[in-house]
Amino acid sequence: MAQPTNFILTPNEAKSAGVSDPIHLPLLIPLVRSPFSTLKVIALGLGSSGRVFVGVNVEFPGLPLHHSIHAEQFLVANLALNSEPKLNYIAVSPPSAPCGHCRQFLQEIREAPEIKILLTDQNGDNESFVSLESLLPERLGPESLLPENVPRLLEPCYNGLILAGPDVPYRYPDLKPAGLAAVNRSYAPYSKCPSGVALVDRQGSVYRGWYMESVAYNPSLGPVQAALVDYMVRCGGGDGGFKEIVGAVLVEKKDAEVRQEQTARMIMETIAPNCDFKVFHCYEMPKGN
Amino acid sequence: MAQPTNFILTPNEAKSAGVSDPIHLPLLIPLVRSPFSTLKVIALGLGSSGRVFVGVNVEFPGLPLHHSIHAEQFLVANLALNSEPKLNYIAVSPPSAPCGHCRQFLQEIREAPEIKILLTDQNGDNESFVSLESLLPERLGPESLLPENVPRLLEPCYNGLILAGPDVPYRYPDLKPAGLAAVNRSYAPYSKCPSGVALVDRQGSVYRGWYMESVAYNPSLGPVQAALVDYMVRCGGGDGGFKEIVGAVLVEKKDAEVRQEQTARMIMETIAPNCDFKVFHCYEMPKGN
Ligand SMILES: [Zn+2]
Ligand SMILES: [Zn+2]
Repeated sequence: MAQPTNFILTPNEAKSAGVSDPIHLPLLIPLVRSPFSTLKVIALGLGSSGRVFVGVNVEFPGLPLHHSIHAEQFLVANLALNSEPKLNYIAVSPPSAPCGHCRQFLQEIREAPEIKILLTDQNGDNESFVSLESLLPERLGPESLLPENVPRLLEPCYNGLILAGPDVPYRYPDLKPAGLAAVNRSYAPYSKCPSGVALVDRQGSVYRGWYMESVAYNPSLGPVQAALVDYMVRCGGGDGGFKEIVGAVLVEKKDAEVRQEQTARMIMETIAPNCDFKVFHCYEMPKGN
Repeated sequence: MAQPTNFILTPNEAKSAGVSDPIHLPLLIPLVRSPFSTLKVIALGLGSSGRVFVGVNVEFPGLPLHHSIHAEQFLVANLALNSEPKLNYIAVSPPSAPCGHCRQFLQEIREAPEIKILLTDQNGDNESFVSLESLLPERLGPESLLPENVPRLLEPCYNGLILAGPDVPYRYPDLKPAGLAAVNRSYAPYSKCPSGVALVDRQGSVYRGWYMESVAYNPSLGPVQAALVDYMVRCGGGDGGFKEIVGAVLVEKKDAEVRQEQTARMIMETIAPNCDFKVFHCYEMPKGN
């Protein structure tokens, strides 16, 4: 059994490693462990709780590149799945600014322009924080489409969805409720087509993730990707990588304008060919009940 | 029969409309015609030949949002498919800066930081050009992964690919050679997995497009999307929209690290359910022949 990941660090773990100020975040880079061979890019994010979240780049051989997860997008999903209310500082290794795609995705966090990103000067000597606002001026942000009171990506939301149809028994009984809980937390304020995915591995551990949208559409993170982030963050580190996943459930609205079914199936078939993949539909609870 | 689009304007057409200087590009907006009901966002691009290219946003109901085409990405594909060597100025309607995803995709053009984007001040009174560099400082650009002499997105390239396997007859004989020509122009310097798509409509007209990659992976434009750009730019304006497409061919390398087959099939099944979709494989011509 490989060593598990340590993709969430407590405030004490960060302090013990010498991080008394956000500028010291890079001290944590050598401590990041992963059984996945994907540590080309590591993004560290300091949340308002004092926890430090890790994101890594994930590529899926055989699939088109828009399915890849950038380290910064992994980081945001890690915060969202673990109910961290705010992201204040980001440091990336090797030192770099997030790409345009990630700068856009980060906009879904309230007050995103104030997030600080650690940059290194040309010589690699001096490090300093710059605001996301300065890296994406004239931004397209959620406020151009959403009223102020609609919850943003890291804010609690509950979509009020219930499962449709008769309760057919399914081989992995824990997955349906986990998938339903996930779709209820999905951030889909633009399309109003939330979706959630739950996975189970050989050991019977359950993971889940939900679809997270971008006001610019394309940088949205799919529900399978989000569930895989949860898998990488919390899994015991089975040696088979994604092939350890034996069951997967997608929950989404029937006849939704944006449907994940075909894409989710394609990704799961590619990364875990023996996984039993099922789709369940949900609908909005009638108002007033 | 609906009116055809006019998504490429000649230097004379632009001049007749009063565009004597790039700052007047927005004068062309009311002239843009499209039989597709997708004129929410229009991007105009002035190329080095003096032609003005049009891009519009395209959404695909039923498909995940990362399949959408932004107006600016449509614009770049329009330039690439029509061999325009350089993009100098962009103006968007309603007036706005490109989103982060598009700012990143634009980086594939050589000297992208010098592209000028028309912005309007808060009151909507004053328009002026700003450089793409100022909208995406600390950019991730192709030069971080590609040597100087590798052709960039709008520069001529030829991938030297030939079709694999026996020459099985296919219902639409024009599509295979068109697909092969497309894959040979595909811009895939990062994955080295080029692909091309050719389409035929009810009238027998052939359209084609090729996969265009981004150094940041996710903003890459798929080969089906590129072929649909060609369809929208050049089609006679059949009233059925994408349902006018009756045949589609994808050409890509067999066992490529990045394969488009499943995604291409899924998109075509969704937008043109009666389209006959076929995949043909290609390989690199042996060197020295
Ligand atoms: Zn990125
Ligand atoms: Zn865009």
